[in-house]
Amino acid sequence: MLVTTDPRTAFSKDSGLIDTTPDEVRLLVDHAIAAMPALSDLETRAHLLDALAAATTARREELAATAEGETGLGRARLDGEVARAAFQFSLFAQAVREGSFIEAMIDHAADTPLGPGPDVRRMLLPLGPVAVFGSSNFPFAFSVLGGDTASAIAAGCPVIAKAHGSHLLTSALSFEVLQDAARAIGAPAGAFGIVFGRRAGIDLVRASAISAVGFTGSLGAANVLRAAIEERDDPIPFFGELSSINPLVISAGAARVRGEQIAQGLFTSFTGSAGQLCTKPGIAFVPTGVDGQAIVDSIVSLTIDAPAQVLLNDRISTSFTQISGRLRASGADEVARATATSEGFTGAPTVLEVAASELGFELAEECFGPMLVIARYESVDQVEAALWRVPKSLTTTIHIEEDERAIVEKLQAVMTATSGRVVFNGFPTGVRVTWAQQHGGPWPATNSQHTSVGVTAVRRFLRPVAWQNAPHWALPKVLRDGSSSIPRRIDGVLTAPSV
Amino acid sequence: MLVTTDPRTAFSKDSGLIDTTPDEVRLLVDHAIAAMPALSDLETRAHLLDALAAATTARREELAATAEGETGLGRARLDGEVARAAFQFSLFAQAVREGSFIEAMIDHAADTPLGPGPDVRRMLLPLGPVAVFGSSNFPFAFSVLGGDTASAIAAGCPVIAKAHGSHLLTSALSFEVLQDAARAIGAPAGAFGIVFGRRAGIDLVRASAISAVGFTGSLGAANVLRAAIEERDDPIPFFGELSSINPLVISAGAARVRGEQIAQGLFTSFTGSAGQLCTKPGIAFVPTGVDGQAIVDSIVSLTIDAPAQVLLNDRISTSFTQISGRLRASGADEVARATATSEGFTGAPTVLEVAASELGFELAEECFGPMLVIARYESVDQVEAALWRVPKSLTTTIHIEEDERAIVEKLQAVMTATSGRVVFNGFPTGVRVTWAQQHGGPWPATNSQHTSVGVTAVRRFLRPVAWQNAPHWALPKVLRDGSSSIPRRIDGVLTAPSV
Repeated sequence: MLVTTDPRTAFSKDSGLIDTTPDEVRLLVDHAIAAMPALSDLETRAHLLDALAAATTARREELAATAEGETGLGRARLDGEVARAAFQFSLFAQAVREGSFIEAMIDHAADTPLGPGPDVRRMLLPLGPVAVFGSSNFPFAFSVLGGDTASAIAAGCPVIAKAHGSHLLTSALSFEVLQDAARAIGAPAGAFGIVFGRRAGIDLVRASAISAVGFTGSLGAANVLRAAIEERDDPIPFFGELSSINPLVISAGAARVRGEQIAQGLFTSFTGSAGQLCTKPGIAFVPTGVDGQAIVDSIVSLTIDAPAQVLLNDRISTSFTQISGRLRASGADEVARATATSEGFTGAPTVLEVAASELGFELAEECFGPMLVIARYESVDQVEAALWRVPKSLTTTIHIEEDERAIVEKLQAVMTATSGRVVFNGFPTGVRVTWAQQHGGPWPATNSQHTSVGVTAVRRFLRPVAWQNAPHWALPKVLRDGSSSIPRRIDGVLTAPSV
Repeated sequence: MLVTTDPRTAFSKDSGLIDTTPDEVRLLVDHAIAAMPALSDLETRAHLLDALAAATTARREELAATAEGETGLGRARLDGEVARAAFQFSLFAQAVREGSFIEAMIDHAADTPLGPGPDVRRMLLPLGPVAVFGSSNFPFAFSVLGGDTASAIAAGCPVIAKAHGSHLLTSALSFEVLQDAARAIGAPAGAFGIVFGRRAGIDLVRASAISAVGFTGSLGAANVLRAAIEERDDPIPFFGELSSINPLVISAGAARVRGEQIAQGLFTSFTGSAGQLCTKPGIAFVPTGVDGQAIVDSIVSLTIDAPAQVLLNDRISTSFTQISGRLRASGADEVARATATSEGFTGAPTVLEVAASELGFELAEECFGPMLVIARYESVDQVEAALWRVPKSLTTTIHIEEDERAIVEKLQAVMTATSGRVVFNGFPTGVRVTWAQQHGGPWPATNSQHTSVGVTAVRRFLRPVAWQNAPHWALPKVLRDGSSSIPRRIDGVLTAPSV
């Protein structure tokens, strides 16, 4: 029997759920394969995604309440996350109907500089069943109901999720939502599956018909799965969203003009969701001098008075304490720690300070939990050099004033080279789910160009197939001559839908 | 001193080229990084690609002649390949000017169902310097002047090529063409580099600034490079085009109506370029019965009378003999072998026959060289089952008559699931370089969704970056409001160029 734990009390109880057996994993994969033909139709996928959005919304209360007892995340945050998961399903339904993502292309037979060229037509087809491993900190948006699931279904790939050990009941309930919605509209039962237990997760990525793995979580867990993938005959893609310190830079001008406002925003950003967001600003570059000191003083005072926060599980709580110790041992000064305590798996909001010139890998370890490292700098050169030295991230944030363009010009190259999203005069936490979003960054932030947020997430689960000189009747409908409801590239020219 | 060998005589001589030292590799990588800012401009890239096309064409005689002495491939074939390489540079220049591939997207700030959403803008940026490893069988189209180089430059990535050991002088001359063209138009010298020798190739993929590897070649060589990549701190992508048996199916109707024509085409296809094409049909499904037997007889007779063919190098020649032996030992009947002999690294065109029902991995080993395995089948069910059993491929080919739609309907699923291009009533050799082309397939054909042929090859070397709430002046020009010379997605709507 698998155990579920309330992190607010550290109290564990039987979940009523048990490890999925190897035979059951095989059966789930077989069902997933059987579901593929039905998912090959674009409108079926769009309709299913709409149904998933509606079903998620309909059961939002129950979902959020269940997650609250397993994650300790606040109800407002969880309500918002369920809404985000539902919105995400809707956005992918839109993207499927818009249809650009299948990249339909037609090159008619033609005389070319290299001689007569055959008729070649191409589109993207689903890769196959996808295994999804969600993260502890996002029980909805990056778990069973999350972006990997939505984008895989949009691509036409059945999904088998691994229930997260830190939110087993939430995972099981989420799966029920998926399955009921699929059943209600007559979508194949094998479109969704779920496995419980670590061994079942490994069995899943080893299953020969699994065609890709979507993962959000720690580098350590990623390495376990990657090792299992290495044992396969065929090297399937592993799309991982892994680790990020998200540097934030406050210019001298911004510190002078709106230091207090930035301090409050930064405090909210690094302590929100108990600091357990992959986009949490982990390092803030603050200028030396009085304006910078005022920001530090303000954050210190907010931190000391903050309540202790509930962390997701025992491992994160232990790790929070360990990393804090390692950073101090590496020379960081602890300038603030919340005094309040509480029961359960807690972490006290903590602020450390270092000199930007000292900042390197050791002082830039990602810490899940309400901890911020403030790096005091004397010059923008110091910031630039430090940004090149620290691990690469999902995001970089910069607060500047309109008359400080030279600073942006100086830092633009390092910011875009070392992260996937550059935020101006705001905070990296809070990721808008939209077409242009990019949630990913150079290693170790992610190990792939595209991740589970934003419409291009769908691209990870598709593969191109070309038809050469195929008779009209043998072509998929979207590749036939004539009108089309989706954009296509015809003889090299991007062509708008014609119906 | 590195040695170059004429495969027509097996005569080796000093190439005058020497192993690149580790220090030289480091220097090349440094120069590549320094070239990146200049390559960030789209028009610079297009202009450079045009210059490469022109320079390749201008020196076509010298290039083909040099390759002839190192590969034994015929002059007509090599002339065509140089033209193809030049055309490929031009096609990528067009794609850069068209601009869709950078995926410019703008989502203006808006009230969303999840609350106020920030302004988010996104485009694809170059990944960084790319290492290119070409193949022995395509000294131009898949080597220093090939699709990996063209697509990496189109993406804005400097290229460092590894000179192929089987065509060192051709590689060196190709590099000279690249470098002279770059110099003539004032492109940075670091846009191109080349290394010689195996150790230098390993040093190259280990270099921390190398951001991706493009590879065409054998599984064995791929594994050596992948092992070197595994030792890196960051797991960079390895895009490999590796192995393919390219099944070809001849229906009963096609055998009856145009058996002789198909036999001649098939003979030309499996012996062209001495059977050393990644798209060579390695297995032909021929019906039992008289129509099928007539096809076999025709191929046998063409094969027996064929001249011995020159293979690219000693390794391929040895391997050709070994694989032929293994296939016979596994139960294949040798039904034809050319009687002619010649000096150098040769392979005698050979035809083996098996029953389709017996066909599995052992009888479906890829063989570089003029060898064809004919699989005789009694029913389409046997063909379908065999296609699922054999290794996956770049292509599947089917010859059918108009009244045999049921056969296509039956085989369509397996053909698209197990290969990246389905060819109707033709032959898989000869790959049109065009927008809709897909040269790739499920493992072991390739290990990635996109490879070096076709415009989407560029996508491998790009990464998305998003700007959030960036002031107008801090955005790349293509992401600013106002007119645009390239297609963009604005607030979710694909929008045509406006200038």
